[in-house]
Amino acid sequence: MRVGSAVSPKVLKGFRDLLPDEEIERALLVEKLTVALRQMGFVPIDTPALEYTEVLLRKSEGDTEKQMFRFVDKGGRDVALRFDLTVPLARFVATHYARLYFPFKRYHFAKVWRGEKPQMGRYREFTQCDFDIVGSDSVCADFEILKSIRHMLYMAGAEHIRIHVAHRGLFDRFLRALSLSDQAEHILRIIDKRAKMAPHVLTAQLESLCDPVRVQKIMTYVSAGEVDGVAPSFEHTLSAIETLTGGVSEESTRLRKIYELLCAVNIQSSYVFDPSITRGFDYYTGMVCETFLTQLPHIGSVCSGGRYDHLTALYMKDAVSGVGASIGLDRLYAAFQQLGMSREHVCFVQALIFCQDSALMDVYQKLCSYFAVQVATEVFPDPRKLSQQYAFAEKKGIRWGIFVEQRNAVVEDCLLVLRDLSTRKDTRLPAHEVRRRMAAEG
Amino acid sequence: MRVGSAVSPKVLKGFRDLLPDEEIERALLVEKLTVALRQMGFVPIDTPALEYTEVLLRKSEGDTEKQMFRFVDKGGRDVALRFDLTVPLARFVATHYARLYFPFKRYHFAKVWRGEKPQMGRYREFTQCDFDIVGSDSVCADFEILKSIRHMLYMAGAEHIRIHVAHRGLFDRFLRALSLSDQAEHILRIIDKRAKMAPHVLTAQLESLCDPVRVQKIMTYVSAGEVDGVAPSFEHTLSAIETLTGGVSEESTRLRKIYELLCAVNIQSSYVFDPSITRGFDYYTGMVCETFLTQLPHIGSVCSGGRYDHLTALYMKDAVSGVGASIGLDRLYAAFQQLGMSREHVCFVQALIFCQDSALMDVYQKLCSYFAVQVATEVFPDPRKLSQQYAFAEKKGIRWGIFVEQRNAVVEDCLLVLRDLSTRKDTRLPAHEVRRRMAAEG
Repeated sequence: MRVGSAVSPKVLKGFRDLLPDEEIERALLVEKLTVALRQMGFVPIDTPALEYTEVLLRKSEGDTEKQMFRFVDKGGRDVALRFDLTVPLARFVATHYARLYFPFKRYHFAKVWRGEKPQMGRYREFTQCDFDIVGSDSVCADFEILKSIRHMLYMAGAEHIRIHVAHRGLFDRFLRALSLSDQAEHILRIIDKRAKMAPHVLTAQLESLCDPVRVQKIMTYVSAGEVDGVAPSFEHTLSAIETLTGGVSEESTRLRKIYELLCAVNIQSSYVFDPSITRGFDYYTGMVCETFLTQLPHIGSVCSGGRYDHLTALYMKDAVSGVGASIGLDRLYAAFQQLGMSREHVCFVQALIFCQDSALMDVYQKLCSYFAVQVATEVFPDPRKLSQQYAFAEKKGIRWGIFVEQRNAVVEDCLLVLRDLSTRKDTRLPAHEVRRRMAAEG
Repeated sequence: MRVGSAVSPKVLKGFRDLLPDEEIERALLVEKLTVALRQMGFVPIDTPALEYTEVLLRKSEGDTEKQMFRFVDKGGRDVALRFDLTVPLARFVATHYARLYFPFKRYHFAKVWRGEKPQMGRYREFTQCDFDIVGSDSVCADFEILKSIRHMLYMAGAEHIRIHVAHRGLFDRFLRALSLSDQAEHILRIIDKRAKMAPHVLTAQLESLCDPVRVQKIMTYVSAGEVDGVAPSFEHTLSAIETLTGGVSEESTRLRKIYELLCAVNIQSSYVFDPSITRGFDYYTGMVCETFLTQLPHIGSVCSGGRYDHLTALYMKDAVSGVGASIGLDRLYAAFQQLGMSREHVCFVQALIFCQDSALMDVYQKLCSYFAVQVATEVFPDPRKLSQQYAFAEKKGIRWGIFVEQRNAVVEDCLLVLRDLSTRKDTRLPAHEVRRRMAAEG
């Protein structure tokens, strides 16, 4: 142990600790999302935090490398911390192809690391909650991902949501007709940032890529999901886009089928067709989606995803397709905080036995075991000032305080004072009556 | 996307993927351990995977550095992946001292990384399940950790356990009396590896440090917890050790008090006093413990820990003490596998609706929503061969198969075939009857 040369207990820039109050709520949120996915047939996997850099890096993504925590390990290997869960999923499917059953519906909630410039609410280490269906080209799989998003958020308590759906193939078709396929990547990136730009900035950026007439057409396309600031029906927008893309197409038919399935199970009111959703360039090839909390639209999408047809192409000959989405836990949690949806004190223990005399520790512990059968109980371990013990109970959010008034060889007959810590009301009762009352009142 | 130059989808040496069957069981095990700790008043925290190297490194631990995944990040900082959860806990307590309430009972289940030589069953990335009580010197805190170990393992289904307890201070006192304090570190390390050595090797190693007479005394000390291969009573061993250490001492009195509390709540039969438990040199200063599954003693301790009086000494003036233990999830999980305690197929979904005709997808989805209210159900998304769909259901461990025989505008009146996939028995029923039956049979 170092002596006299204290090390500052500081955390790396962009990283953070989570204290119990927040970590408890995040854990409960994750549990709800997990239950929702399990109910729909998704199963968990795990992959290493650290992988070969060449496994994680895809040629087209120069930006990715800049954000990676990459280094040479002691065995001379070029390695990096994963920056998302989709690339490891692709690698995982290629590695274990023969052992998996398809369609493979997996969820993976885990940390990822990106050396981004830290900003308000953005960290270099964060948790992603990914769920994907791999190995099915079916409309049904697209539908299931869209349905899962709603189910998960409902289970987590967020019912005021709107899921914006589009199809990358439709936009590609549209740009092809405008002879803008070569600029597609840039245009998609600009459109993806649309919500953060003033209209004239957006127009100016697009005009750097093509003439004003085509810019106007692009603006018409991306605005088709909004009439006078309101989203028209899915069907209405779809018809408008079909008109703009030369009529009914394979892609528009697929979107229509997805919508019919949403209608079949009567959840269509949570979905709109929003042609401005592009998800940047990314790896998406089909349906894409973003999810907004209608009470907090400005925080951006809390769950985004889409279909990608070449998931495993980097690692194996058989390109396996997939469709999936990802919840950013930080953003969702922050939103729930803003909406007042988190309880101030989640506490797993209902009762605290106060320690007034160390010599009574055996009685305290006997009582604790006696209560614990029905009511989670803990013992304060030291005979500290009562004010300290009260502060402990209050900070933890414990409901009941218990004081031993008179010990008894028969534990259930010990005479106790039961204090309701919220009202400070005391009641003098034998232990068996205390247990009964706490269990009844919860 | 790279074309024509496939990247091998390989995983780093010493790292691994977890496939659904294993990951499900590990997740359920973790959930049980979590519930047990929450019931006892422990709360979760989280800390970064990556920290400043100087925060993680303690001067005395040259070996630690060799095992670290350490590198210079793009901002020029010397950083490393955490190799345990105790050092980050110490840093966390120092960082947030003013905001925490003491005794601070936290659990932290998370990945840690060590560049050890990979061996059978040992990985470079693994999960530790730590729980500690920080800021109490009380006997009660020592007792609570010992009680928690038993409670967690019982909740996880392991009732045949024996928790070996000792006190580092007693052994230190003994070595002092033999004038061997200077060799204490080496002796403790040798004794810690005792279970893996033949007796003559152990003796030889000790004789390299001191004369045969004292070696014999050390052997007597460490064997006091075993008489003819059987553990005598806690009290009996404690008396023997008191005799060897010059009578009743502060440390022996403390151990006796711990034992009295175990007796008070009637769980003493799970505990033995085993003077050979030293936990290497480490940071322990008081009670130490290891936990063995009595049916699989040779796999070693599944949960180890102890009291350390100088937890935060590296980072702050006020040395805060703590007591805690850690479950190695890999070892515990492997043990449960060996004991046949894991179910072969844990499945979260009870029913699969088979896809025989894509045109019926809306019916399948309506039925799925109708069933899901009571029975977790999924739809096979593609009209693949039935044999493939059966294989999917079987690999996943799904109990019921559902086939649509005749659609109906009223979903609950659709005529279905319900197949028990374990017995292959078919029953022709309307949907409402299928739901009722599945819900009743579970």
